[in-house]
Amino acid sequence: MDMERNVDTTNTDPYITRLADEERFAKRMDPVLWSEWGEGAPISREAAESFDKNGYFVLRDAFSPAEVKALMGASAALRGDDRPQSEDVVTEPDSDEVRTIFRLDEHSEVFRRLAEDSRLAGIAEFLLGDGVYAHQSRLNYKPGFTGKEFYWHSDFETWHAEDGMPRMRAVSASLLLTDNDALNGPLMLMPGSQRTYVACRGETPENNYRSSLKKQVVGTPSNEALTRLAETHGIDAATGPAGTVIFFDCNTMHGSNGNITPFPRSNAFFVFNAVSNALQAPFAAKSPRPPHLANRKDAPQAIRPKTGSLA
Amino acid sequence: MDMERNVDTTNTDPYITRLADEERFAKRMDPVLWSEWGEGAPISREAAESFDKNGYFVLRDAFSPAEVKALMGASAALRGDDRPQSEDVVTEPDSDEVRTIFRLDEHSEVFRRLAEDSRLAGIAEFLLGDGVYAHQSRLNYKPGFTGKEFYWHSDFETWHAEDGMPRMRAVSASLLLTDNDALNGPLMLMPGSQRTYVACRGETPENNYRSSLKKQVVGTPSNEALTRLAETHGIDAATGPAGTVIFFDCNTMHGSNGNITPFPRSNAFFVFNAVSNALQAPFAAKSPRPPHLANRKDAPQAIRPKTGSLA
Repeated sequence: MDMERNVDTTNTDPYITRLADEERFAKRMDPVLWSEWGEGAPISREAAESFDKNGYFVLRDAFSPAEVKALMGASAALRGDDRPQSEDVVTEPDSDEVRTIFRLDEHSEVFRRLAEDSRLAGIAEFLLGDGVYAHQSRLNYKPGFTGKEFYWHSDFETWHAEDGMPRMRAVSASLLLTDNDALNGPLMLMPGSQRTYVACRGETPENNYRSSLKKQVVGTPSNEALTRLAETHGIDAATGPAGTVIFFDCNTMHGSNGNITPFPRSNAFFVFNAVSNALQAPFAAKSPRPPHLANRKDAPQAIRPKTGSLA
Repeated sequence: MDMERNVDTTNTDPYITRLADEERFAKRMDPVLWSEWGEGAPISREAAESFDKNGYFVLRDAFSPAEVKALMGASAALRGDDRPQSEDVVTEPDSDEVRTIFRLDEHSEVFRRLAEDSRLAGIAEFLLGDGVYAHQSRLNYKPGFTGKEFYWHSDFETWHAEDGMPRMRAVSASLLLTDNDALNGPLMLMPGSQRTYVACRGETPENNYRSSLKKQVVGTPSNEALTRLAETHGIDAATGPAGTVIFFDCNTMHGSNGNITPFPRSNAFFVFNAVSNALQAPFAAKSPRPPHLANRKDAPQAIRPKTGSLA
């Protein structure tokens, strides 16, 4: 094993990955839902149970049409006249069209407020049973006609290997900014896959993130592993009208197909990590990814979730 | 206009296309359903009405599990040990995997019998109100993980322009050889689009078919036209278990997304043309496509549909 890795001297890292010649399945060693559901919970019992069992749940009607409209307007501006000139912007492999804008909360006031909104950060607190901070935020935009696929991956595998996130205590919230159905490249998830950790084969190249954001190669499971997971768990598509939020665990296997329909797909994406789960040195890479991909503040402050309309 | 084109001297071709600088929408000048439905019809009244209104219908449970198994076995053999060494085989753009095998009925006994089966050819006779022959047949195979998209097109536009099919009196029958759901790249159709003919912009390059089978460029509507059609008609996905047959009109706008799921998508595809609608010289190309793409027999003989199990 590479000596430059952050090897836990007590040898208790349950999530070793990026071994040169070996892919393996390991049991998840952390809870999925870190709180007990009760009357005061910010989500329904059914939603909490779905999150624990399936690794995701879909929240509808939490944002008003006026709020959704405000967010859509801010999104259009960020991809148009207000497009940031920075490494935060990733384009489609074959064109100059914007595919992703990172640090979304730093480029827009309404998205900054969204990141602290109780309907996202407050629910994340409940799911993770801890104060939370934004590990990553981004705007995803998949154009109509030519939108490319995102291949299958567990976010946690990359966050652990390349960012140094120690445990599975993080959750993603994807707020749909377009109507999303089964045909325009929706988020596909393998329900229940969050209980299995797929330690991926292949050592991490330097600056892997530069190419992996366009097309991920290292840190993805083999076709055999994906077939096994899909045959065990099946594949769900998380769909809904604009304004729908999908919360999914950091280890749920997910991806999305390309999109030849005329209807684009866009979402605002926030990853919340537990403050007790702050980043360390990467577990399987020589140097950590840059801060627009992983917020590396030493002692992250918990967000104080706010209520009130975004419109 | 190019003088080498097959210009109708009475100037009545309602389906002029491939104009250098112009795309236009024209009204369909032919019926969709050419027979009156009655008690003796080989399909239900609902199926006939769906075909007329939507340009397609889905037929389930017409083939027994044993028949489907026999067809799947023949398909696997054709893509494996019995792979034909001929221009009939088209591979994926990025690999040697089989994407399409043309003249399917000439490479396999069971598929030859399928092409004459009353559940395909007999229904096609009813839909077209005439004797029918196989204009084209092929096996389509979209692998899991890496299956590429087929972009939007009307088959008739190409058959008219490049094969010389005079009128809209042909129907495709796609028999699913894998389970097909909304997520593994199903056939998507715009219901009702068969009533509008999109005359495509751009003159046909020589040997256009060589590249268009991998990625079609000339003979596809613009993004603006597709958006207009999709907003008018919506988009349906035709799905079902292996053995399901989808019949769709030659002018129904259709396409399919790529497929990153582990589940491949395969179908056996037969185009039936009315014997009264036999091919002429191409309407918008200098020379016709080769016979594996378009059966150019001078006086095509009508199939006599046969009954009996394929297993």
